[in-house]
Amino acid sequence: MNKTEARITLAIDAMGGDQGPKEVLAGVAKAVDISPRNTNFMLFGQEDVLGDIISKDPVLSTPQISVRHAPEVVGMEEKPIAGIKGKKNSSMSLALNALKEGEADALLSCGNTGCLMAGSAIRLRTLEGVERPALCTIWPGRERYFTLLDAGANPHAKPYHIVQNAVLGSNYARVALGLVRPKVGLLTIGTEEGKGNEVIHETHAMLKDIDGSIINYAGLIEGFQIFENVVDVVVCDGFVGNIVLKACESLSKLISSFLDEELRRNALRKTGALLSKGAFRSLKQRINPEQFGGAPLLGLTKNVIKAHGSSNQNHICGAIKIGLDLVQHDMLSQVLDDIRESNEIIRPQNPLKNRPSNS
Amino acid sequence: MNKTEARITLAIDAMGGDQGPKEVLAGVAKAVDISPRNTNFMLFGQEDVLGDIISKDPVLSTPQISVRHAPEVVGMEEKPIAGIKGKKNSSMSLALNALKEGEADALLSCGNTGCLMAGSAIRLRTLEGVERPALCTIWPGRERYFTLLDAGANPHAKPYHIVQNAVLGSNYARVALGLVRPKVGLLTIGTEEGKGNEVIHETHAMLKDIDGSIINYAGLIEGFQIFENVVDVVVCDGFVGNIVLKACESLSKLISSFLDEELRRNALRKTGALLSKGAFRSLKQRINPEQFGGAPLLGLTKNVIKAHGSSNQNHICGAIKIGLDLVQHDMLSQVLDDIRESNEIIRPQNPLKNRPSNS
Repeated sequence: MNKTEARITLAIDAMGGDQGPKEVLAGVAKAVDISPRNTNFMLFGQEDVLGDIISKDPVLSTPQISVRHAPEVVGMEEKPIAGIKGKKNSSMSLALNALKEGEADALLSCGNTGCLMAGSAIRLRTLEGVERPALCTIWPGRERYFTLLDAGANPHAKPYHIVQNAVLGSNYARVALGLVRPKVGLLTIGTEEGKGNEVIHETHAMLKDIDGSIINYAGLIEGFQIFENVVDVVVCDGFVGNIVLKACESLSKLISSFLDEELRRNALRKTGALLSKGAFRSLKQRINPEQFGGAPLLGLTKNVIKAHGSSNQNHICGAIKIGLDLVQHDMLSQVLDDIRESNEIIRPQNPLKNRPSNS
Repeated sequence: MNKTEARITLAIDAMGGDQGPKEVLAGVAKAVDISPRNTNFMLFGQEDVLGDIISKDPVLSTPQISVRHAPEVVGMEEKPIAGIKGKKNSSMSLALNALKEGEADALLSCGNTGCLMAGSAIRLRTLEGVERPALCTIWPGRERYFTLLDAGANPHAKPYHIVQNAVLGSNYARVALGLVRPKVGLLTIGTEEGKGNEVIHETHAMLKDIDGSIINYAGLIEGFQIFENVVDVVVCDGFVGNIVLKACESLSKLISSFLDEELRRNALRKTGALLSKGAFRSLKQRINPEQFGGAPLLGLTKNVIKAHGSSNQNHICGAIKIGLDLVQHDMLSQVLDDIRESNEIIRPQNPLKNRPSNS
């Protein structure tokens, strides 16, 4: 079913994030402006806090927006299970419930990542045939954007988990990047057959098996090729993906601050920097594209989108747009079909074969 | 034995590298200028080619420099074993022999990495008690430099290999960065106990066991902390290390080219860039420090230093300086002691315990 015509409801955890609910709601206001009129926003958080912000912004005073009171807040430092089980009346927890019960079609949170992943695993099931969810990020490459997964949901990935990531990521690249046949690459070291490790060899063999109708497998890629748009979907296990993601984020911040320091070192450089300031603004936007402010947790029965804790209103709006795209394209149905087809092919090598079928 | 007084001989594979022997020899010329007079440089390569370059540079016409004829060259695209076994008269192969036979104290090559690693493994033994060599890189952090290993020599690392990397990297940080008690961090995802994977849990326990006299273990670190100088020695397995290294190198090139593009977009920005050009030059040097143009392959009985294929003369000179430092500080003896002590402690958990002792 295509949900373009039907009403779409997004559950927003309005209390998460480093910048507080005011910034989240500013993002929602931007999203209201650019969303179809059939979109509803269900905001979860402390009623008085949210009511106060809403009363001051006419854009937010629309029947498209409703508030659900959630007295508790999951802190950014709380431990995954404790944060989600210990605070059943938190904005994150109640938003997850609304998603589970079908009151909402997608959930967005810029709160505690560990709690959101644990909460999703506990409250929502994985899609039939999917073993583990994967966090899927969009990165800027030399010529165009690409996706990388898993960014940390599953740090003990087995080969068939990584194969499922390839299927999930391909579907997401179709929806979010508008690609028809996104090219998939398996991240490793050295692209000659025989290099890498055992997990890579097994995964590579399975990916070749499902290459064609389900995914468009381009083979092995190395770390230095990630940003070169050799492929559109970079797959790896959550341990490697998380480390690479965080190292790269941190490196790009480091380079920005080195540049900033160097440009302030004397009057001549300062003058030059003032004249070229447009270049630095564009650079920042190219490295940290706000339209992809969210990363979906793929492989679940529902659409869950995680935005960065430090998200500003543009990132929030971008993350909401991702949620809308997922619902409008009904990505979950397509993923379900592809995973079923893929499991049929790789089942002989796949431990799932020994389990009772859910279908 | 401290080798500051004794004669030091460096074997240089003069034919490796993307820029050819002229650039390598320009680097040697710079190194001659800054090295103690007791340093000898043994250049391996095609006699006529090298002779021609030497005859044109008075600095190179010194008795400190000698040429050993090597008719063959290992290409940058050759496969590891084939490249080293198939070309016994290559500059890389003959330089390795000179190192093995004790004619040289250290070897430098900016040639094919895979061939150099395979050749070192085949021709040279690992130090007593060390199972696998590790490639150790120096990176620029926010406030100071740090080391990361393994950058790709051992992509199937077991916990005790990573523990040995901690010992090797600590010794290298003492020599190359002048640190007395370098802090060691184990790279993982999420620093709470229980996160990460099985290899991380076992390695973490062993690192705590040898913390104190042998290494200064600071615990687990995440990807976003790598560049923040939380620790001086980042340890990880060669699979993760290689991917992170190459992704970060490639990201920093991408950001540089984005910046370059943005600064050329209009006349105003171009003018600004001209005024601030000193800032961009300093930035480049901060991101890609030439004084650390080489990465040692640690854990071998001899000193082998790999310089980047794209090294310019300053990187080559920096890599030679690293080789001199390793020899002058007699790092191999210190590593031997530390590895012995470390193996005594972790032997109960270490598969080495079941092998006949070499001592």
